[in-house]
Amino acid sequence: MTSTLHTAAPSTTPTTDPTASDGGDTDARPALIRGLSAPKGFGDATLRERRADAIELLGGIPDPAVLPTRELAEATARVLAVPGVPALQYGRTEGLPLLREWIAAREGVDVGRIVITNGGFHGLSLAIQAVVERGGTVAVDDPIFPLFLRGLELSAGVPLPVPVGAEGLDIDALEARLADGARPSGLYTVPDFHNPSQGTLPTAARRRLVELAEQHDFVVFADNPYRELRFAGEPQDDAVFNESDHVIHINTFTKTLGPGLRLGWLVLPERFTRDVVALRSRQDSHTSLFVQSAIAELLTSDEGLFDRTLGVARELYRSRAEGLATALEREAPGAFEVRVPDGGFFLWPRLVDDAVDADRLAADASAEGVEYQRGSFFASGTGNGAERHLRLSCGDTSVERLDEAAVRLARALARQA
Amino acid sequence: MTSTLHTAAPSTTPTTDPTASDGGDTDARPALIRGLSAPKGFGDATLRERRADAIELLGGIPDPAVLPTRELAEATARVLAVPGVPALQYGRTEGLPLLREWIAAREGVDVGRIVITNGGFHGLSLAIQAVVERGGTVAVDDPIFPLFLRGLELSAGVPLPVPVGAEGLDIDALEARLADGARPSGLYTVPDFHNPSQGTLPTAARRRLVELAEQHDFVVFADNPYRELRFAGEPQDDAVFNESDHVIHINTFTKTLGPGLRLGWLVLPERFTRDVVALRSRQDSHTSLFVQSAIAELLTSDEGLFDRTLGVARELYRSRAEGLATALEREAPGAFEVRVPDGGFFLWPRLVDDAVDADRLAADASAEGVEYQRGSFFASGTGNGAERHLRLSCGDTSVERLDEAAVRLARALARQA
Repeated sequence: MTSTLHTAAPSTTPTTDPTASDGGDTDARPALIRGLSAPKGFGDATLRERRADAIELLGGIPDPAVLPTRELAEATARVLAVPGVPALQYGRTEGLPLLREWIAAREGVDVGRIVITNGGFHGLSLAIQAVVERGGTVAVDDPIFPLFLRGLELSAGVPLPVPVGAEGLDIDALEARLADGARPSGLYTVPDFHNPSQGTLPTAARRRLVELAEQHDFVVFADNPYRELRFAGEPQDDAVFNESDHVIHINTFTKTLGPGLRLGWLVLPERFTRDVVALRSRQDSHTSLFVQSAIAELLTSDEGLFDRTLGVARELYRSRAEGLATALEREAPGAFEVRVPDGGFFLWPRLVDDAVDADRLAADASAEGVEYQRGSFFASGTGNGAERHLRLSCGDTSVERLDEAAVRLARALARQA
Repeated sequence: MTSTLHTAAPSTTPTTDPTASDGGDTDARPALIRGLSAPKGFGDATLRERRADAIELLGGIPDPAVLPTRELAEATARVLAVPGVPALQYGRTEGLPLLREWIAAREGVDVGRIVITNGGFHGLSLAIQAVVERGGTVAVDDPIFPLFLRGLELSAGVPLPVPVGAEGLDIDALEARLADGARPSGLYTVPDFHNPSQGTLPTAARRRLVELAEQHDFVVFADNPYRELRFAGEPQDDAVFNESDHVIHINTFTKTLGPGLRLGWLVLPERFTRDVVALRSRQDSHTSLFVQSAIAELLTSDEGLFDRTLGVARELYRSRAEGLATALEREAPGAFEVRVPDGGFFLWPRLVDDAVDADRLAADASAEGVEYQRGSFFASGTGNGAERHLRLSCGDTSVERLDEAAVRLARALARQA
């Protein structure tokens, strides 16, 4: 039995009362702590005994074979050989200048707007705390990357679900909510290869979203961890998120250089930089300078390395997404509506036959030896149809194993035939 | 001009109104953010132009010469060569089991009580947020490690100063405050080689402190980053802090293996582990597994390495503390009352002559080319006499340079003769 971050429990929807407690009137813990939900939802649901030979299609995990591990070991050795070993000393809260400059150049923004984080989720948590007053409303994707709802508990935030369709967030639906009087202080969305539903928000919709944010004075939390892993289709304009003082753009090296680094960044509007740095300096001072120095050395000592790494990774992830889609259709013809995404790690197939019990299918699949996240775990509202989907991660599983996973999934489906 | 964490600004004392704003009624930022003080105090005061040849005795910085950098590079290369490269994947919020087990064995506690942090300050921030309700009272050292007061702003906490003497926290004074009706939810102290005043809390006083915490139901934040750097005197009982459910024991590899790692740990009473893990999982998920794996490999692949590293470091820091004390008496006989501490990086000399203007001395010393922290920056209350002291850090400065620093300081003193 395993349990790691990517399979951990999302929150249930927080209550609107930030002082709500699960410990009764005698609970003397701070309101912040009482507002943190106990593990439940997909964490618990997937905490069942797994077959020893289970194929796990659970998390957004990069394949270690396409991480530049040898080059990272060499870069680390070099930074540890620098006289005075600055990589082992204190650094600035904002991050290592060399790394911030590399990121700023890639993002096309002034370096003063870059704050290094301990990964994308850390960026989200800082953005939430810097923007959302306790009990405030935040518009969110529906379906959603469920860990965002956990992070939102840091501000006892109340999620306002906005539908996500084949092309990402439904801007018309958002506009209607705003016209109805909704006054969110923030909006959370994943613009590229939406997690879980895999659509990409078109450039025109991005511009409308930013305009709405500016008109209604909310802050867009644009969370884009899969951006660099596009293997098909045309990139949509990402710079739009860097051009407004109503967008905090969140990114990370997690999907490209490895989750274990815990290294990401924020592109902040200037009006937020001082507050975020002040908050961050009171939490953990700064991101490991050992990690920052090693990655800065890795990226700057060989200018082509990052793009070469991405090129190999994209091809691998494309072959796996296509391979799994093909295998599903071969093993269970017509059972799923599958769209191969334009990037990232996931398929989001929909069960075509309404008679299939999706929860039973997940349990049967587990018994057959394949683990995935059921779509219901990604709902932030109701009526989104997420429960008819499966989220299948194929980034770190070989095509051969993906073929076997499809065979097992077909067997599980057959149990309901 | 340089500015890094260890020279950064402490907070001013937070107001008792957690909604107090520095931006007027139109400030729409969350109360958490409005409660974070702007940089002032010793950060600003030391942000003056320094001489290019300035000798900096400012921060609690280990000497890079006694960090095991070569061994760390080798350990890193080994963990990056492990098939599947688990060091670059997701991990558990609590930390890497191998590292937690090593620490638990050294602390003499169950591994379930260890949570890995991004350094000691991160441990403090988690403890504050897990224990202190917004606006709550926290008893604190006076003089104090001033960055704690900044961290306390995360809970809009109100500090209650308790005097610190030659043997650390004055337990009688604390008891008197409690008898007078003070009801703190937490108490902050540095028990070994107090920062800045260098005393060590005796075992009997530690036991009384823990008893008071249990009687009055507050939580001791025992912050002990210099514990392993004892070079004289007898160790006082540290295990007492691991035996009560009213103590959170905070430690770090910062002073022994390097601040840049950002790697520390909490020893938590069982009643707090779930809350701290829940909070931490919503902030940045977990400490870099790359860092944790490299350090776990470093510590466990050669069981004697850590203690050998400490042995060399202690001897170096002893020679520097003694060297600086000797040089001060040689260059400015009778000007300072100096006590060589039993461990750590600092001297805390007191100006004997009340006629010396301590602020002018610091400015003159800067002009002469020596930078240090003036004692007034460490006051959490009034009447503690801290303003008559200098905090001189000698951990990362050679004896030859310390001799020169004493010469320059004597010249600065002579300007007031």
